[in-house]
Amino acid sequence: MNDPRARKVSQAVLMATADDTEASFYEALQTGDLEKMMSVWADDDEIACVHPGGPRAVGPIAVRAAFEAVLTGGSVHVTVQHVRRMEQPGFAVHHVAEHIQAMTPQGMQTAYVMATNVYVRTAEGWRMVVHHASPGLPQELPDIVEPRATLH
Amino acid sequence: MNDPRARKVSQAVLMATADDTEASFYEALQTGDLEKMMSVWADDDEIACVHPGGPRAVGPIAVRAAFEAVLTGGSVHVTVQHVRRMEQPGFAVHHVAEHIQAMTPQGMQTAYVMATNVYVRTAEGWRMVVHHASPGLPQELPDIVEPRATLH
Repeated sequence: MNDPRARKVSQAVLMATADDTEASFYEALQTGDLEKMMSVWADDDEIACVHPGGPRAVGPIAVRAAFEAVLTGGSVHVTVQHVRRMEQPGFAVHHVAEHIQAMTPQGMQTAYVMATNVYVRTAEGWRMVVHHASPGLPQELPDIVEPRATLH
Repeated sequence: MNDPRARKVSQAVLMATADDTEASFYEALQTGDLEKMMSVWADDDEIACVHPGGPRAVGPIAVRAAFEAVLTGGSVHVTVQHVRRMEQPGFAVHHVAEHIQAMTPQGMQTAYVMATNVYVRTAEGWRMVVHHASPGLPQELPDIVEPRATLH
């Protein structure tokens, strides 16, 4: 797997759907694997990432630096919940609720983060082009899907 | 313009590009026009909106309710800066820095919000499918585009 070409072919098989790519993205966070993380992203100057409370990072070099900073502390204990999907022929938008646990001087802290992930279909499979995550909240906020229904 | 069909045709002309649609979105906020706001969105059950610090609203009814809440206070003094665009044949992702001013008991307050807007091309022109905005920051954060260049 050290041959970059073999790796590309392998990734096209592994990232055959946006769901596969999303799974790889969160596995990379969970295992603290920066190379795996970057293999998830499209090779495009306009890929962009916004971490909670942070600036936007645009382009492969900046996105890599942003994840390098996140993974400096090791792996991230993140699980995803409530995935909503909008699928189109060449792209997909997923909204996920990230449940993040982190050990702090105050003990184990839990945060909920709302993230929008956008994927495009490329010759090498589905790749991420956007990860936009909103600052964590101490409690999970329920989705608002049919607010009128709550009136009855 | 009261005929819904005429309105649809007119909108297709007005929203011929993702930039046009984005301009209409921010005009709707600036003028506090909820109907204009909703005309910008695609007619799809999976359209989604995350306001700063809020839950996600999914579907036309919930998205409408979310903007109704925002516009209850009247128009929003928002200007957009630093638009980054990723254009694909059928969809576009824009990242914008929103500069928002609001009068509060503490005087005029300014916030910067990072927003990701996603558009799709439909038979009625380009429509918004995602608006994800991160909580405002008191100061503008510069983009990180080429972090290595800052080392020299």
